[in-house]
Order: sequence, then C-alpha cells, then structure tokens
Amino acid sequence: MSVVSKNRLIINQQGSVAMLSNKLGKVTVAEVGPRDGFQIEKQFIPTDKKIEIINALSRTGLKVIQVTSFVHPKAIPQLADSEEVMSRIDRLPGISYRVLAPNLKGVLRAIPLKPDKINLMMSVTESHNRANANRSIEESLKDFENFVPMILDAGISVVGGMGCALGCPFEGRVSTQQIERVVDRYIAMGIRSIGIADTIGVGNPKLVYDVVSHLKKRYPEIHWHMHLHNNRGLALANILAAMQAGVTEFDGAIGGLGGCPYAPNAAGNISTEDLVNMLTEMGIETGVNLDALLSVSEMVQKVVPHPLNSALTKSGKPWILQEAPSHQTKIG
Amino acid sequence: MSVVSKNRLIINQQGSVAMLSNKLGKVTVAEVGPRDGFQIEKQFIPTDKKIEIINALSRTGLKVIQVTSFVHPKAIPQLADSEEVMSRIDRLPGISYRVLAPNLKGVLRAIPLKPDKINLMMSVTESHNRANANRSIEESLKDFENFVPMILDAGISVVGGMGCALGCPFEGRVSTQQIERVVDRYIAMGIRSIGIADTIGVGNPKLVYDVVSHLKKRYPEIHWHMHLHNNRGLALANILAAMQAGVTEFDGAIGGLGGCPYAPNAAGNISTEDLVNMLTEMGIETGVNLDALLSVSEMVQKVVPHPLNSALTKSGKPWILQEAPSHQTKIG
Repeated sequence: MSVVSKNRLIINQQGSVAMLSNKLGKVTVAEVGPRDGFQIEKQFIPTDKKIEIINALSRTGLKVIQVTSFVHPKAIPQLADSEEVMSRIDRLPGISYRVLAPNLKGVLRAIPLKPDKINLMMSVTESHNRANANRSIEESLKDFENFVPMILDAGISVVGGMGCALGCPFEGRVSTQQIERVVDRYIAMGIRSIGIADTIGVGNPKLVYDVVSHLKKRYPEIHWHMHLHNNRGLALANILAAMQAGVTEFDGAIGGLGGCPYAPNAAGNISTEDLVNMLTEMGIETGVNLDALLSVSEMVQKVVPHPLNSALTKSGKPWILQEAPSHQTKIG
Repeated sequence: MSVVSKNRLIINQQGSVAMLSNKLGKVTVAEVGPRDGFQIEKQFIPTDKKIEIINALSRTGLKVIQVTSFVHPKAIPQLADSEEVMSRIDRLPGISYRVLAPNLKGVLRAIPLKPDKINLMMSVTESHNRANANRSIEESLKDFENFVPMILDAGISVVGGMGCALGCPFEGRVSTQQIERVVDRYIAMGIRSIGIADTIGVGNPKLVYDVVSHLKKRYPEIHWHMHLHNNRGLALANILAAMQAGVTEFDGAIGGLGGCPYAPNAAGNISTEDLVNMLTEMGIETGVNLDALLSVSEMVQKVVPHPLNSALTKSGKPWILQEAPSHQTKIG
C-alpha cells in the first residue's frame, strides 16, 4: 500500500483538516551544510576555510553540526580533508559533532576521531541506493549490521539515515513497507535515532504528515529527525506539517547549500537561516542566534562561486524597519 | 493588543500544537500576475503579449484572474494599456475577471469595461498607505465610501484589499485594531469579500493562523482571501496555516512575478505554479491544470528579462521519473 493512500492525513478524503495536539516548544536544528552542502561544490574549499566556517557555526547556538563525510576521496574530492577538518575544529561543549560514514572503511577512519555521533546513509529505494552507494539495499544493511556494534562499542551513537524516503527520482512513490524494511533493520542493530530524508524534494505537507504520523505510531521508541530538500519550495511547509505530526529535529544547510546530482537545477537543502527564522518567528525555541547565523552565511558566500539559496540572505530578517518616504509627487 | 499576543495560536504558550477541524476540499487560486506581477516590470510588455498571456491563463482552469489595474499611466506606465487589455481579452464563462482600481478616477475608467469584480487596495498602516497611495487611511476610506455604491449599482462586486495587514516596512508589527478599522468600514460599505495581504512577506504560520482565526471568528459573514508574498520563503507554509484556519482562496502570480519597491532584492508573490503544485499534491481540488500553467510560465519567461521566481519552473513537477544510471564505477 502506498504511503499516499493511508488515511492519517492533514487533509483527509472528506476534505477536512484533521488536527491534533502535540508537545513542541523546542526544536533542534541540525546543521548539515559542511557535509551535505560542501560535498557538491566543485571548487575545492580550503581546509582552513571549512574549519573557520564550522567554528563559526559552533558559536551560533546550534546544538548539532554534521562536520564531514568519510567517503572515498576519489568519490568526493571536496571532502578528502575529512580527517583534518574533524581533528582541527574547536569542539565546544553542548554541541553534538557528527560525521557521515557510508561504509566500513569510512567508519574505521571516523572512529579514532571520536565524533559524538556517526550518521549512516542509504536510500530506501533499490535504484537510488545503487546509484548513490553502488550496492543493493541488502548489501548496505548487511554492511551496517557488521560495523554498527563496533561503533556502539567505541561509545559513539549512531543515526540511521533513510534517503529518498518520500520519493525517488528513478522509482517515484515509496511505500511504507520500503521505509519499514530499513527501520526494522536499524532497530535490530540497536539504533534509536533515524532520519527521514526527502532527497529530491518531492514531498508535500500531506505526505509528510501521513508518513511521519504512521512511523511515530508504529515505532514510538524512535527519535525521528527530518532532512528536507526545497526543490519545489515546500520544505518549510513540510516542516510545519512534520512538527504538527510531532517531529522536533530538522536538518538545515547554511545558505541552502547542497542538492542532488540527479536534480541539477533545483534548490538544495532548506537553508538553516530560513528554518531558524520560521521557528523563531513562531516562538519555537531553537537556541540559535539568527544574526550570528547570517554572519556565517556571509563567510560561506565568500567561499562558494554562486549565490546562496536562502530567502533570508536576500530579504533580510523581518521587522527591520525602513524610513518612510517623506514625500510623493501627486499624480493625476 | 498585538495580533502576536493573541492566544489562538498554532503553537501556543504551553508549547502545544493546537489543531482544529475545518472543511476544505476545494481551494480557489486567483491569478494576480497580470496586475501585481507586470506592474513592477520596468520593460514594457507589449499589449498583445499581455492579452496572449491572459488568454492562456484563462485556459488553465483558473477561476479568478486579476487582469490589470486602472492607475494613472504616469504612476505605472506598464499598465497604461489597461482599457485595451481589459476590452480585448477573451472572457470565458465561469471565470471571474477582476481589475484593481485604487481611486475614483480608476473606477470611472473600469466600470464601462464591466469587470466581474473591482478590487480596492489600501494599506492598513498610515505610512505605507501614504507611500503607496499618496493619501491617509481616512482619505482612502472616504474615497471608497463615495464610489463603492456606484460600483455596486453597476452590478459589479467589490473586493476590499488590506495591504501590509501582517506587517509594514515602515511601522513593523500591525495590531488587530488597525485591521479591524478597515474591515469595519468595508463592511459598512456593503463589501463582503476582503483580502488580507502580506505585502512584504513578514508573516509566519503562527501569525497567519492567529490573525485569520481572529478575523474569521469576529466577522463570520466575510469571505476572506489571502495575498502572500514569499520574501522569506514562508508563503506556502503560511498558506498551509491559513487553510488550517479555514481560508479557501489564495492569490498567486505566474512565475512568482511581482514584489514591493520597498523590498528590492526579495522574492515577490508566491508563484501560482508552486501554489497549485502544493494543493494538487495534497489532494485539494483547484481545477487548475499544472501542465497548462507551466506552459504559460514559458510564455511569461519570454517577455520578462529576468529568471522567473518559481521553484517548479526550475525543478519541474514531482514524480517525473528519470532513468537510473546503468552502471557506476566501483571506487575504493
């Protein structure tokens, strides 16, 4: 059964907006720009600049920063300096510094650097996992099952990622069974923190609400976070829907960096600035200082050769008053 | 009391997401690009092109099109051809063709062309009304009171617009009293259809939900529509919140055209394509054919000298499948 046909909807078949109450108040914003953003930048960002930006992000009030990815340097040359970045950044107390490791080789490189968490990543659709990780879903899961105990034994937490969880560029719609297959295996590995990624930004508020409500009910022991790309301008609306379904942690990428090689012209991650602005304006506590974040955007703009994909860097914060024009010539 | 301090919130002070049920099912999308979009384009769009675009919009399934504005040609030279446009377009049955008329002179020009509705526009803040309409709020209201009976006598409906209803570039936050002052006078004029405009895109889902819930409760006789600019990327999230508060009509501008002269770098109106995509994906009926709409975007892109501000024109519709790569070189 498709996730779309479930009837735990925001807008249900009778055309009513079904609502619910849920505790929120605080939301965690996880910064993934240094990993998911930088990795698709073709022009190499000097290691010192990466470290400078990550250190600046550490001083914005963010509680989670995904620092880098331990992938093969030939696959992603931009992140060939992952060891150096991870070992040289200032690690401030209270911040969870995370790294992505897609396979055993990455994990073996990451563990000695003692990240607070290691993010695993795979896609819930066969074709995207093959395109992205060059192996089948089953191969990814078996690999993870082999090395997750080693990570946990090293005292490092694990976050399980699920790419294309809302839709796939090659297969289209994704069923709940495809998601549950991966969740069940993650749980069996001892993982209790799982990320739902809309890798190509096909989700809509109803789909997000449906999928998340279903998963939260089926797996009450799991802490969910969401990673939403903004290809169709819907990421903030989708985050609103996800919050209404009870999700309290979302990824953002400074400057809206990132994207998908299979969606070349589209927007990437939701920008951290735009996400923090929405939450702050709604009175939801994030701990992030938006002015400090916008200063980091300016640093990032200097190291990438294209305009940032962030509404706030263009429009500025709301409620900054302008002087009213003193006089207008009367016409007609 | 500020609208922000009301406690009819999505996220209330106790940190809970308060929800409610409401009939939706159908939403009306009103196209305002030919007026609110074209009017800030510096390069004159030939009258024939305007007519061609409006005629194409008429064939997308849109039920409401704001065709032009009867302002002084020296104020907005782009719309100096408003009589010709309004008299030469093909008016299809079932579509409400509307025009904006800011004052008596505009109304006198508009009435003979028999639009289905005339939109009035003023700002709820004194400084923005002076900057935009060159007169005080009281002067706008008195002018409207003089000529609204004439419009109604001609068998033409009136829509009352409220600019800067969620915030003002010169005065900042807006109180409910500032909104109610204008609503009360509109109602006294016999107007029962009123638009709430976030002219500079400062609103957020909580503010939208608060303001709309308050107004719907206080004035149950009024049909509300919303006109939301996307300066901070929040228009779709704000529309989701407004739907949850029961609003069923929203403006969009093809290609995300438009903007505000006091917010020069910012995004303009929410793009009709992105709005229709969200609603369609959520299973909400709009009657609009998204493919037809995207064909009109292509026509519009040929007549404006800048990229459109629409996520969908960059990313394409969701669920268009790509071929999976057949082979990836194994690395490492």
